[in-house]
Amino acid sequence: MNADLLRQISFDKAGLVPAIAQQHDSGEVLMMAWMNADAVTETLESGRVCYWSRSRAALWRKGESSGHVQKLVDFRVDCDGDTILLLVDQTGVACHTGRHNCFFTSFKDGKSEVIADVMVSPEDMYGKPADPS
Amino acid sequence: MNADLLRQISFDKAGLVPAIAQQHDSGEVLMMAWMNADAVTETLESGRVCYWSRSRAALWRKGESSGHVQKLVDFRVDCDGDTILLLVDQTGVACHTGRHNCFFTSFKDGKSEVIADVMVSPEDMYGKPADPS
Repeated sequence: MNADLLRQISFDKAGLVPAIAQQHDSGEVLMMAWMNADAVTETLESGRVCYWSRSRAALWRKGESSGHVQKLVDFRVDCDGDTILLLVDQTGVACHTGRHNCFFTSFKDGKSEVIADVMVSPEDMYGKPADPS
Repeated sequence: MNADLLRQISFDKAGLVPAIAQQHDSGEVLMMAWMNADAVTETLESGRVCYWSRSRAALWRKGESSGHVQKLVDFRVDCDGDTILLLVDQTGVACHTGRHNCFFTSFKDGKSEVIADVMVSPEDMYGKPADPS
């Protein structure tokens, strides 16, 4: 039955669509990653968010190595079908740097500023330095 | 001085980067569009959000025809520099369909459902049927 839903998504030439993850209750935008049709199908069927890692060219089950999984709360598609918004319940932190979300650099008055602290060290999450996917 | 900031952004092969617009006070994710370096520069300098329209291959000053502008509140870049999060103050509605945000289609139990009403008719916004950019 997900085939009908997949037809409503406009994947790009590489077969991918950007997916924004937002914490369902706080509204915090956690991260943006990419999905292919298999990642969409797995996410809808399992209720746990699965992306497509462009660097590894493989399905990326968020939290598989770190335990910091994203439980799917709602799956939304935008008006022209080319962007997905995932409302999720994030366990732990979303960012591979150990921050709660990935958008911790702010540009203002010609300068950039880091506006969030590391909550978990990447070594504690992965047993090694950070790898974005 | 924005040249230093531009170097922190990883534009793709087409010279573009995805930009998520979020209402700064409510946390509502409004839309996702694309920016090139000129759109980033103009947005930072003017304080009004300007995207790059891929369909028109031109700068897209959001709200130029509809009046539904986005005032920039904060400009954030993610951990690997390849996605932008714009905290904005949206005048009127963000979506070309006349809905407040673009993510009004929810996928659940194998079906899609429209979960938001049209607030302003596209004809009232543009004087003609909806054009996404």
